[in-house]
Parts: sequence; structure tokens; C-alpha cells
Amino acid sequence: MIDLSAIRTARVENIASAGLSVETPGEGFVEITSEVARFLHDIKAREGVVLLYLRHTSASLVIQENADADVRADLATALARLAPEDAGWVHEVEGPDDMPAHVKSMINGVSLHLPVASGRMVLGTWQGIYVAEHRRAPHRREVMLQFLGSCEER
Amino acid sequence: MIDLSAIRTARVENIASAGLSVETPGEGFVEITSEVARFLHDIKAREGVVLLYLRHTSASLVIQENADADVRADLATALARLAPEDAGWVHEVEGPDDMPAHVKSMINGVSLHLPVASGRMVLGTWQGIYVAEHRRAPHRREVMLQFLGSCEER
Amino acid sequence: MIDLSAIRTARVENIASAGLSVETPGEGFVEITSEVARFLHDIKAREGVVLLYLRHTSASLVIQENADADVRADLATALARLAPEDAGWVHEVEGPDDMPAHVKSMINGVSLHLPVASGRMVLGTWQGIYVAEHRRAPHRREVMLQFLGSCEER
Repeated sequence: MIDLSAIRTARVENIASAGLSVETPGEGFVEITSEVARFLHDIKAREGVVLLYLRHTSASLVIQENADADVRADLATALARLAPEDAGWVHEVEGPDDMPAHVKSMINGVSLHLPVASGRMVLGTWQGIYVAEHRRAPHRREVMLQFLGSCEER
Repeated sequence: MIDLSAIRTARVENIASAGLSVETPGEGFVEITSEVARFLHDIKAREGVVLLYLRHTSASLVIQENADADVRADLATALARLAPEDAGWVHEVEGPDDMPAHVKSMINGVSLHLPVASGRMVLGTWQGIYVAEHRRAPHRREVMLQFLGSCEER
Repeated sequence: MIDLSAIRTARVENIASAGLSVETPGEGFVEITSEVARFLHDIKAREGVVLLYLRHTSASLVIQENADADVRADLATALARLAPEDAGWVHEVEGPDDMPAHVKSMINGVSLHLPVASGRMVLGTWQGIYVAEHRRAPHRREVMLQFLGSCEER
């Protein structure tokens, strides 16, 4: 049932880091796939792994379908079912959407990685990378990008 | 309450990558722990970290108990409670099990890592690695495996 | 909308690993941010990434707000809504809180990473790192810490 395909090896030599600033228009999903691809291009990445980290507690990082926008709308609906505003939260000082946003951030997480081969992310056909904003108001969100692996000579 | 045990250090020298193809029989959990262990054995891994990435949006990667099969059955039940088919999803074109599968994939995630010491994953006693299939139909799923660290000379 | 800031590069040279033993007082969140910072200090970490892995299936790793303790209380409430004890679980042999604990562990996950710059974790202003205990009874939990990157000469 399971088959290991050809193994490739490379040297791990460099770590390259950059901050990505993302303006969100309020609740919903902002795709950042092309920005991460640009980072890999700019550093001349070859073989390795790119790690993403979101420096916030009321937003999250998500890899999901980037074809049909209805999917993202339904994902937001699903999260609202899982963490409704009227659940009787104790922590209400920052508004009724704040505690649900923390719950959604915890469930989805703020840290993920993607493999990189020949300078490109090994994404699935329908996969895109998103910053999921869980607050109603627009926010500026910071994503730390790091590539570990080998780069072309510059 | 917290005690740091002995710190070990090693050189980071190599990255080894391989694709793992997993046939799922439909909804449920397929264990891949021994396949990942075989990958580490084949590349003669010593000290480092193994990173797993699933290239799909309606399945996920899960580390969970591998002793009692009832646990996995209950985990599937839990996910069905969190993302039921009859929740009035907008995105229904790919069938009633598609949008719940995306939600489950988002919640569980598609990217994780495990530490490796002396060539073996440092799993907990009861931990196994699973591809969680969230669609009803059988699927072929691709997992990218990457090891970063030191290997024995080959 | 998105702006890439200055890219920094460093050599990847070392991997340092340590085990962290965490005593939990039962259900709730135990912060380990300062312990991870101490690990980075002890190994003289400079540029890189720190990876955390929890060797258990009924607890999880969470990055969340460390300012208002009400947030963690609400997060525990949210998890209890998502995986209630009276949901008719099949796996009940280890007590009514065991299967909900597995569900919470799956949803939150047991593997995450944080970027490290100039020896310090690049945490958001309000972020702390927690071991989330999902069982009622106190437990000893093991977290594996690994740093990949460059260190000062020792």
C-alpha cells in the first residue's frame, strides 16, 4: 500500500529569514502563497524547507484549497460554529469577537512548514497558504519566513 | 517543576527528501510510523529532525495513540461532530463529505515534525503517525518526508 | 498589501537537543516560555529555529496569550465544548476524561516551531508557549527541544 519513491539528498548550509507584513481586511483568509514563493526566489533557494510563523494569538496560518472561494467562506462558518461569540466567555474586555479569535488561533495553529525542491514549494495541486484573520477589524499581521537548506551561489 | 536534562549537540549537514504514497481505504486513519522509520533507516539518519508534509486539503497528518483502535474510531466520530455533513455548506459541488473534509484538514493540519536521536524517532510510548483520510472514497495521498541533521557515512 | 522586509542569512551548523520535563497540576495550561528561552541561552543559540515536540497523546502544545489568565480558562472551556465527556465515546477504559483528552491533543497538535534571531525567540508581544494538559489528574509530560542554526563559540 505504501511505496517510498526515490530519495534525494542535499547539503544544509544556510538559513535565510525575512518578515512578511500582511494587511487583513477583517475576518477571512488572505493568501500569501506568492509572497512565500517570492521569498524563495529572492534568496535563490534550492533544496530544503520553508518554515512560517505567525506572531499573533487571534489569527492563524492555514493551508487550504485555493480554487473555490466558497471553501474559505465555509471554513470561516465552520470556525464560527466551533467558537461562537455567545458562548459565555469570561474574557470579554476586548470585544465579543476576541475570545472566539483566540480559540480559532489555538485550533489552527501559528506554525507550519512546507518542503522546497529545486527552489519551489512542493504544494499539492489545490493548496494555498493563508493568513486566517479571526478578528472583525482589519489588522496588520506579521509572518516570519525562514528557509533552511541549500541556495544557489549569489 | 521543570528540569532541563542533558543537552546533546550534533552537526547539521544533510537534508534527505522522499515522497511517500499512501493508499487510504476511505474515511479513517492509516498508520505510517513504520514507513517513516524505514526512511530514516535507509538514509542512515543519526541526529536531527524529520518533517512530514501532506499535499492535500481533505486529509491531514495526526500523531495519536496507536494501541487501542477504538481511539481512532472515536477520533473520527469527534471530527464528524465538529464538521457535520448537514451544516448547510455553500461548497457542495464535490459531494456532502467534501467540505467537512476541508474543515477537518484545517483543524488537524498537514505539516508536523518529530525529533530523531541515534537514528530513531523520539516518539512517546503510545504515539503513532497517521494519515487521516476525511473523504468517504479511497484516495492516494502523498506525504513528503524530509530529514535534517547528520547521517552515517554511506 | 504585503511587504517583504530585509532578508537576513546565517550558516546552519548545529543541532542541539534537550528534554524538558513538565509537571502539570491536571487540566489547564502550563507556561514553558522561560524554560525554552533558558535552553536557547544555555546553548548560546544565535540564528535559527527552535522545534518543540510533546511525547504524549492526551496533552498538547499551544502558543497563546500570556497576559490575561481568563483567556486560558476560556480556552479550556472551548476545548470542553468541542470534546465533551458525555459524547458517548467507545474508548472509556481509562476514564471519562481520556477520550476527550485525545481529541483535544489531535486538534491542537504536539509539534510546533518558533524562529530565533540573535538568540531570542521571535514571539509576538502577547505570545507564550504552553503545555496544555487535557487529563484531570496531574501528569509528568516530556517536551523535546531542538535548535537548528548557528551558535556562539563555546
